[in-house]
Amino acid sequence: MRQFVVIGHDAPTTPDFSLDDLAGAAGRLDVLCRCVTSAFFLSHAIREDVRVHLVLADEYTVTFDGAELRRLNPDERSTAALIRKALGEREEAIGHVPVETSPGVSLTRRGFEPTLSAVAAEGTVVQLHEDGDPVVDVVPPTDPVFVLSDHHDFGAEETEQIEARAEARVSLGPEPLHADHAVTVAHNYLDTDGFSQYQ
Amino acid sequence: MRQFVVIGHDAPTTPDFSLDDLAGAAGRLDVLCRCVTSAFFLSHAIREDVRVHLVLADEYTVTFDGAELRRLNPDERSTAALIRKALGEREEAIGHVPVETSPGVSLTRRGFEPTLSAVAAEGTVVQLHEDGDPVVDVVPPTDPVFVLSDHHDFGAEETEQIEARAEARVSLGPEPLHADHAVTVAHNYLDTDGFSQYQ
Repeated sequence: MRQFVVIGHDAPTTPDFSLDDLAGAAGRLDVLCRCVTSAFFLSHAIREDVRVHLVLADEYTVTFDGAELRRLNPDERSTAALIRKALGEREEAIGHVPVETSPGVSLTRRGFEPTLSAVAAEGTVVQLHEDGDPVVDVVPPTDPVFVLSDHHDFGAEETEQIEARAEARVSLGPEPLHADHAVTVAHNYLDTDGFSQYQ
Repeated sequence: MRQFVVIGHDAPTTPDFSLDDLAGAAGRLDVLCRCVTSAFFLSHAIREDVRVHLVLADEYTVTFDGAELRRLNPDERSTAALIRKALGEREEAIGHVPVETSPGVSLTRRGFEPTLSAVAAEGTVVQLHEDGDPVVDVVPPTDPVFVLSDHHDFGAEETEQIEARAEARVSLGPEPLHADHAVTVAHNYLDTDGFSQYQ
């Protein structure tokens, strides 16, 4: 399974936001939505063996599970509507027990550290870093976990938590990418098994 | 220069569409908007040496020029607003003379064939095809031109026109990708010079 944890530093924690201003008042929810699209969509299929965890302002995590997903569309607005629906049911999320808010989408009352901790237990955390090993030189782990950030850099504490759990440090290329583009490149690298089939 | 021609088979040709339904009534304009975002955005910069040509229903072409672009944001809605603005000035586009509708964005009254013909004269057309040569085995041309399609496959005539001009046939990987994800992977490949710096 491939998993992506995406931190939305300015993301909303209530459903009181407009779908008309995702890049503004909704705290750059557009980036998180594009990460979901990049993580799941192939031309005519959904990647079932993928999970995406969107961490909203270190307070809630919305998880998309490819094996269970229904009603996901590739555009930002409809994905944002799923997130808004999840936040609308936040009162149901008690402790760390997730509540399913639409098929394949669940909300948990937890921030970055507990989410990363849970996901790291299921896979191998790969840190993406400009000074990391070129991705093509790294043997891909079976169950990679990538951690990404919205339009902000990781905070010092977040970086510490990632580094404490990372088993590899990888660079996807010489140019710094948006989170959703990094998801696409990471998938491509894994799809081609580090391009080894070609070499 | 890297150029991307994207065919929007169902895209609107008038500005009478709502920004609230890009994936529906606006004929999957969301895909074209994400292609623009993938083509231009780096983490904290715009790729200046890039042009994107969106072919709208074989009738108009909206061109984004990275060297001149202002006011481009990464979300779908704001990019769609630039396209809508361009279509609002379609009466000004006479013959094949482009009209600039916002900084770095211009509209031309021409469909796929004349657009491809003009762009092909400035670069090397690379056909993306599942049976093509693995991208890592191909020496990237200096001025590549990639042709992509929205959620529909290319029509027979479009394929013919591409094949007549293509100087290489390349596969980006084993999985069939959405157009915007293909743009991201193509950029990554070119950024790393076919990954040769790593090999």
